[in-house]
Amino acid sequence: MNLKIPDVLITFEGIDGCGKSTQIEKLKVYLKRKDITFTVFREPGGTAISEKIRSLLLHETEEINPVTELLLFSAARSQLINEKVIPLLEKNEIVILDRFYDSTTAYQGFGRVSASLEDIYTLNKLASHQIVPDITFYLKISPEVANKRTEGTGKDRMESSGDDFFTKVATGYDMIASSNKRFRVMDATQSPETLHAQILKIIEDFQLSAV
Amino acid sequence: MNLKIPDVLITFEGIDGCGKSTQIEKLKVYLKRKDITFTVFREPGGTAISEKIRSLLLHETEEINPVTELLLFSAARSQLINEKVIPLLEKNEIVILDRFYDSTTAYQGFGRVSASLEDIYTLNKLASHQIVPDITFYLKISPEVANKRTEGTGKDRMESSGDDFFTKVATGYDMIASSNKRFRVMDATQSPETLHAQILKIIEDFQLSAV
Repeated sequence: MNLKIPDVLITFEGIDGCGKSTQIEKLKVYLKRKDITFTVFREPGGTAISEKIRSLLLHETEEINPVTELLLFSAARSQLINEKVIPLLEKNEIVILDRFYDSTTAYQGFGRVSASLEDIYTLNKLASHQIVPDITFYLKISPEVANKRTEGTGKDRMESSGDDFFTKVATGYDMIASSNKRFRVMDATQSPETLHAQILKIIEDFQLSAV
Repeated sequence: MNLKIPDVLITFEGIDGCGKSTQIEKLKVYLKRKDITFTVFREPGGTAISEKIRSLLLHETEEINPVTELLLFSAARSQLINEKVIPLLEKNEIVILDRFYDSTTAYQGFGRVSASLEDIYTLNKLASHQIVPDITFYLKISPEVANKRTEGTGKDRMESSGDDFFTKVATGYDMIASSNKRFRVMDATQSPETLHAQILKIIEDFQLSAV
């Protein structure tokens, strides 16, 4: 495979414990070995301001109102997309995002119900400066299995929100996936190696179709 | 005058240098002397999280994208309104805000044109948890006069945006004022004492009409 697709934006989505980090790590190793230029960002973060917002969101001890949370995530995203992602895509580079606005829809729209879905879509469009991913890998796993995987690890404020919350988030992801062609629903209970091979295959097929 | 109106929300608006702080100070002295319970907040700020956001907005040296700025202002507002303002109004207290969402419409919508007015109204509604001021005092002054007043004072990031910017903001305020009955357009070139007397008269009239 020789990835030369101009300005490809690949996003990874799924509930905590679905294996996103492992898969992104494997993809990074692969791309490096192939000498392909790419950049990975995790949301929220990736710029000086966005990292300050991230720290507020994950470590603030004061209770953050759900609407405030939604707006802070969006602010961090806006800065990352405008300052980093768009310039890289304009240079025809590959950008990989560990979470993007589908996380907002799933976590804040379906999980916390911070705002109406209509308002969340307005916010997502605004904060993403209207860019849309080419491929979104949704690593699907049940909250029970994900919970077993993350057991014993130090959980941050977002990860400590309870099983009921993650069930709603998972339902949200399923609904978004069913109505967006860019989504690839992946069985995240498979071995990391199998999953990695499937992800590469999809990227390759996307490249072929884009030629 | 005996202010006993339940849950009154009074906001002060206008471009920098219009005299908001002086008028709010005079109103505070008056209310204290009359033994009337009230709370004043300045936007952005008023809660631990909102003050952290304020500090980011006013002192960040990195360039903040206009959409990020808009979302950060809204996040600070959401926390203030939910955590402090709504509980005070529910206790039938008077709340005075030094800037509210009309500032967002004027500064970000008309001044910077960060987003469409429609998107800004969606954000304002979300961030204000749908509360609406009872009276909004718009201290109207030309950018030229305002600029003379603030000359020589240490200006923060927002205040250093240039004359053309403030002309657009002033036009924005004029337009918002013309389409909202809660607005009271005040001639802010008058002496602080005359202006204060007019403001008290308006609050008194509002009280009488509310009885």
